Amino acid sequence: MSVPKEKLVDVQSRADGRRIPIDKVGIKGVRYPIVVKDRARGEQHTVGEFNMYVDLPHRIKGTHMSRFIEVLERHRLKVSLRTFKDICHEMREILHADVAHLEIAFPYFVSKKAPVSAAEGLMSYRCRIEGKLENGTLDMIVGVTVPVQTLCPCSKELAEVSAHTQRGEVRVDFRFQGFVWIEDVIELVESCASSPVYSLLHRDDEEHLTERAFAHPAFVEDVVREVARKMGDHSAVTWFRVDVENFESIHNHSAYACIERDQRGGMKDKG
Amino acid sequence: MSVPKEKLVDVQSRADGRRIPIDKVGIKGVRYPIVVKDRARGEQHTVGEFNMYVDLPHRIKGTHMSRFIEVLERHRLKVSLRTFKDICHEMREILHADVAHLEIAFPYFVSKKAPVSAAEGLMSYRCRIEGKLENGTLDMIVGVTVPVQTLCPCSKELAEVSAHTQRGEVRVDFRFQGFVWIEDVIELVESCASSPVYSLLHRDDEEHLTERAFAHPAFVEDVVREVARKMGDHSAVTWFRVDVENFESIHNHSAYACIERDQRGGMKDKG
Amino acid sequence: MSVPKEKLVDVQSRADGRRIPIDKVGIKGVRYPIVVKDRARGEQHTVGEFNMYVDLPHRIKGTHMSRFIEVLERHRLKVSLRTFKDICHEMREILHADVAHLEIAFPYFVSKKAPVSAAEGLMSYRCRIEGKLENGTLDMIVGVTVPVQTLCPCSKELAEVSAHTQRGEVRVDFRFQGFVWIEDVIELVESCASSPVYSLLHRDDEEHLTERAFAHPAFVEDVVREVARKMGDHSAVTWFRVDVENFESIHNHSAYACIERDQRGGMKDKG
Amino acid sequence: MSVPKEKLVDVQSRADGRRIPIDKVGIKGVRYPIVVKDRARGEQHTVGEFNMYVDLPHRIKGTHMSRFIEVLERHRLKVSLRTFKDICHEMREILHADVAHLEIAFPYFVSKKAPVSAAEGLMSYRCRIEGKLENGTLDMIVGVTVPVQTLCPCSKELAEVSAHTQRGEVRVDFRFQGFVWIEDVIELVESCASSPVYSLLHRDDEEHLTERAFAHPAFVEDVVREVARKMGDHSAVTWFRVDVENFESIHNHSAYACIERDQRGGMKDKG
Repeated sequence: MSVPKEKLVDVQSRADGRRIPIDKVGIKGVRYPIVVKDRARGEQHTVGEFNMYVDLPHRIKGTHMSRFIEVLERHRLKVSLRTFKDICHEMREILHADVAHLEIAFPYFVSKKAPVSAAEGLMSYRCRIEGKLENGTLDMIVGVTVPVQTLCPCSKELAEVSAHTQRGEVRVDFRFQGFVWIEDVIELVESCASSPVYSLLHRDDEEHLTERAFAHPAFVEDVVREVARKMGDHSAVTWFRVDVENFESIHNHSAYACIERDQRGGMKDKG
Repeated sequence: MSVPKEKLVDVQSRADGRRIPIDKVGIKGVRYPIVVKDRARGEQHTVGEFNMYVDLPHRIKGTHMSRFIEVLERHRLKVSLRTFKDICHEMREILHADVAHLEIAFPYFVSKKAPVSAAEGLMSYRCRIEGKLENGTLDMIVGVTVPVQTLCPCSKELAEVSAHTQRGEVRVDFRFQGFVWIEDVIELVESCASSPVYSLLHRDDEEHLTERAFAHPAFVEDVVREVARKMGDHSAVTWFRVDVENFESIHNHSAYACIERDQRGGMKDKG
Repeated sequence: MSVPKEKLVDVQSRADGRRIPIDKVGIKGVRYPIVVKDRARGEQHTVGEFNMYVDLPHRIKGTHMSRFIEVLERHRLKVSLRTFKDICHEMREILHADVAHLEIAFPYFVSKKAPVSAAEGLMSYRCRIEGKLENGTLDMIVGVTVPVQTLCPCSKELAEVSAHTQRGEVRVDFRFQGFVWIEDVIELVESCASSPVYSLLHRDDEEHLTERAFAHPAFVEDVVREVARKMGDHSAVTWFRVDVENFESIHNHSAYACIERDQRGGMKDKG
Repeated sequence: MSVPKEKLVDVQSRADGRRIPIDKVGIKGVRYPIVVKDRARGEQHTVGEFNMYVDLPHRIKGTHMSRFIEVLERHRLKVSLRTFKDICHEMREILHADVAHLEIAFPYFVSKKAPVSAAEGLMSYRCRIEGKLENGTLDMIVGVTVPVQTLCPCSKELAEVSAHTQRGEVRVDFRFQGFVWIEDVIELVESCASSPVYSLLHRDDEEHLTERAFAHPAFVEDVVREVARKMGDHSAVTWFRVDVENFESIHNHSAYACIERDQRGGMKDKG
């Protein structure tokens, strides 16, 4: 079953007469092992899920999907924040496109010491990097989802003892100038909740966290405002969106709050 | 493009020479609206997700997948616990099979009054029915997942004030004789946790639940044992499995416990 | 444990000094049975998943989460496209907010006849309605996800026989004036793929669909352009976004394409 | 806030009077980076999701959840098939248990050459290892999910041209004696489908795969039987279960088939 070369027609490169350009076209949901920079250890191995798109002018019928994988193959195990822009550039060139879109989602591991015993355990945080390269400029958004504990201020004031707490998730997406460590954003977020969460805790740590949470009650409204305030004060952050979702322990649904701000014009007071 | 009948060969009915019978073959992930019996209102509309399988003897190449949908169509909006066995019988007959397997998963809605204000709100519970019809006997398992609040006994004793709580999920699957209301199993489970959860709560309810939980601390181990004890004492229950998963508010992982018991020989003490 | 009224302090209504308004605050992931309008049968029962948010001015500490459920309770089983605006209005009023956000996701069932045998089976489509009520104006987006079959044009031209096909999903979100039936959008989308998909097909239908797909090869690029062209020609549609994802049968990842257009200024040719 | 040691009561170690032993208790859903053995490169970095349980005798109130994480910490980046039994032993010892259960799910990467061009791309396969250590004996099940292409034999015979194809997933779980490479099981499965799937394919590869699939039509019934036959013939395999799910390209649901066999007594012919 030998294949004469002339037979392998390039259907994708044919003309298209509908005069409709496509905003994004490419591949979605490709898993590849990656290595990312790590504040504590230099770098860490993890697994990324990739979406890779380019724009397509109205004249051309289709893009060449295999070339996205070829770009990924060339950067196998070398994918990182540092090579992110290079990958976008290669996508644009190899696919003769004006705009390249690259999205990578990955778990990021941070070794964390328990607050009293100092016992160490790894925490995993869901992170993502989304970028759009157009006219030589890369517009990049970094995101991280941070699990926290929240203690209900209303429950605390109402009940004679105790107060209900729950796990919450704070999702922060941001644009920045210069460099920002994911670890710094995680710590910023954790300082805004009733308490951080840990993978490894001994009894003295658990006592400490219970009392810390009781001393720092916070609605989703409080957490979203505190994170917004601190992201707004961060000199490198030019835009951010904060989502807080509390997996309420007395309900079967979530409490939710969201603030999005463009920092280039300053934090606007809409109240 | 008219189709002469003789052309429509029945590939599935051909012989297969590999001498390998198939345990289950059929369709998976079909959504259909259903009506189920409801203790409070007689019946309720909801949406079911269906898996339908039969066995296939070694001699035959394939089953006729479209016939499963035909059975479903005949019972459209009449699918219920009462018609469950009829559907299994029809599957077996129309597909010339020895064994029929039917699995339905659906949200089930229960109107629940808040504990102090008596304000009413709907709760949804994930339920499932799984049955196997063989030699005229239907082996049926009913399951329900009940969200609850748990308060950590360790945290309560350690801290001077308060204790961490979280949402947990109790999954109960059971075989039974006679009839069992899903509502009864939900109430049985809720009585074993630190407190039930609700969709609608006012401030006096929230105060009540906070204090109730503080008065009833429970590890996953306590919840799974209490539910096992009460399911074991239920006269209609012949087998059960209880899974408890706590979405820990001080960790980013779950605490988990499981007990499975065959009641026909009595609860065995393995300790 | 009786509760004197004066004790039930309203923590949420207190002042907040951080001067940070919140864009959205409310509840997420609440399931309720709903009844929606249906072109063929007048109406149908299904199950909705609700997100309900309002804005919160900088001066106030928190919103009153229970009021969202109260609004939902008042409309139990009467939630529909027609009452959508009423629900938004009630949310705004009862929560003293400027802006109300309502999002409902639900499976929608359509009875569909097979192309040759005319055998009927129910198809379920994932739908959603998202609205924002501000200054008396409701900005509403309706969305529907339509599964289809696509046949690869490249594979068809290369191979001497056959061509690989796969299931794809077309997600259309749109703003509109007047009224648009979801059924019409489903049919519009299905006409743009290699073939529609069905729940119930007999052999003559399967033959027909196989040949139909072979006669209508389509890349994701072709499907997204055809749907964009037809949505652009629809007189009631003022904005749309079309996503096409092919679950490639020769890969373990998806092919993807997306076009978004604001119709009020006409379809722009960016090529 | 110094903590006098005597205050840190060990609630978990207290007696329990309910006389109900617990089958499994522990932690669920913990993510940790792992290194696994790899036929081609010696070893590879990936990310595992862990469930770790022990049994609990009826006399004791609770297990010590933090000890599971301590075991994991000691094996950080050294978790592998080789250390699997060691981890189970440590769990049993440190928790004074009779039985230890360990479950690890992880993506496994294999570099695969396209069939004609020999272009290389990474494929990721969802794998899992589940073990139960009791009385010094480890009962271990290894599992792998392999995506494949299937071409419908019925459609091929009915239509004058072409045939519908789709992505399918074959899930194989097995017990074994000695050693089995995951890569070997993947290749065994791929040889039973209409064609394998790849991450990187050029046009000549696509032509080849299209024609290969057309020459090897296979129902889910055919795939499940072929995989069962080859697993049954594998000298190291003592038990297996094969699930095949086809994401039908002409339906919105799956076709499914399953065979489970205990090889120690030989493959039984139930037909």
